[in-house]
Amino acid sequence: MSSAAGVLSLLAERGQSLAVAESLTGGLVAAELTSVPGASRSFLGSVTAYATALKRDLLGVDEALLSADGAVHPEVAAQMAAGVRTRMEADWGIATTGVAGPDPQDGQPVGTVFVAVAGPGGTGKVARLRLNGDRSVIRRESVRGVLALLAGELSGDGRAQDTEQNGGNGCLQP
Amino acid sequence: MSSAAGVLSLLAERGQSLAVAESLTGGLVAAELTSVPGASRSFLGSVTAYATALKRDLLGVDEALLSADGAVHPEVAAQMAAGVRTRMEADWGIATTGVAGPDPQDGQPVGTVFVAVAGPGGTGKVARLRLNGDRSVIRRESVRGVLALLAGELSGDGRAQDTEQNGGNGCLQP
Repeated sequence: MSSAAGVLSLLAERGQSLAVAESLTGGLVAAELTSVPGASRSFLGSVTAYATALKRDLLGVDEALLSADGAVHPEVAAQMAAGVRTRMEADWGIATTGVAGPDPQDGQPVGTVFVAVAGPGGTGKVARLRLNGDRSVIRRESVRGVLALLAGELSGDGRAQDTEQNGGNGCLQP
Repeated sequence: MSSAAGVLSLLAERGQSLAVAESLTGGLVAAELTSVPGASRSFLGSVTAYATALKRDLLGVDEALLSADGAVHPEVAAQMAAGVRTRMEADWGIATTGVAGPDPQDGQPVGTVFVAVAGPGGTGKVARLRLNGDRSVIRRESVRGVLALLAGELSGDGRAQDTEQNGGNGCLQP
């Protein structure tokens, strides 16, 4: 079972819904989830906020944070996940932000990625990934990373096992 | 050059921006566009409105239309494209809605797809695609169809050549 099918199955078992906010993955997380037949039972929708202003306007990310630290920041990932969860009235929200390359962005090197999950009751988690490879690999591994973070939360172990395999440095509380 | 790279190149030449609204393609149109390095010069973002209520809440699609005719309808596609264009303050908006399968939806058979483009000055166009194949093929061909519709508008010929190849029945004015 793919990781997308896995999280959709866990969500369906619980009768819970999911919303997605993406930056560097640019639609790939949503596309991966909706490749699974019956995804609509749990997947509500997604926002790709590629332009920084849309992170503020559509997802409610704090403008001062974006101005001070740029879009590649753990708190931006956390606010994107919480924002899309609220906006779509979902049980869970997940988010990606980072640098897919080929050029550095906001003072961060290519391969710096933050993935976040926001859950019921205001719970949340952010993981930092340090990825190697080209743009395509970094985007793909970011998808794996955010789905692994959600799977960890849904299965109740509270750890993002795959992000460790990807060279992440563990989870930060948002 | 891929069709995504092609439309991004045409947009960059004109200094124009693009926003995307997706239903059955579920993020694939945005993912295809953002696979191109430098996409952020023209691509602002996307909304995947997979749940029907989000087509109304996030994209402004008319609730009476959704209630009466369901989500798989040419006017829904047109309103999704116009809605995301307005919402993201983009020069162009494109949209997909249809039935990827495996099951029929809203009384429409698998493979019924509408793709739409909304441009500067309130211009717009919708094409109906009649696609064969499995869920993956239908989603992929829908991406091709909507990018071809946009490419036709950008290159000024006003026709969506690839939708004809896909067995579309031409373009309807929204």
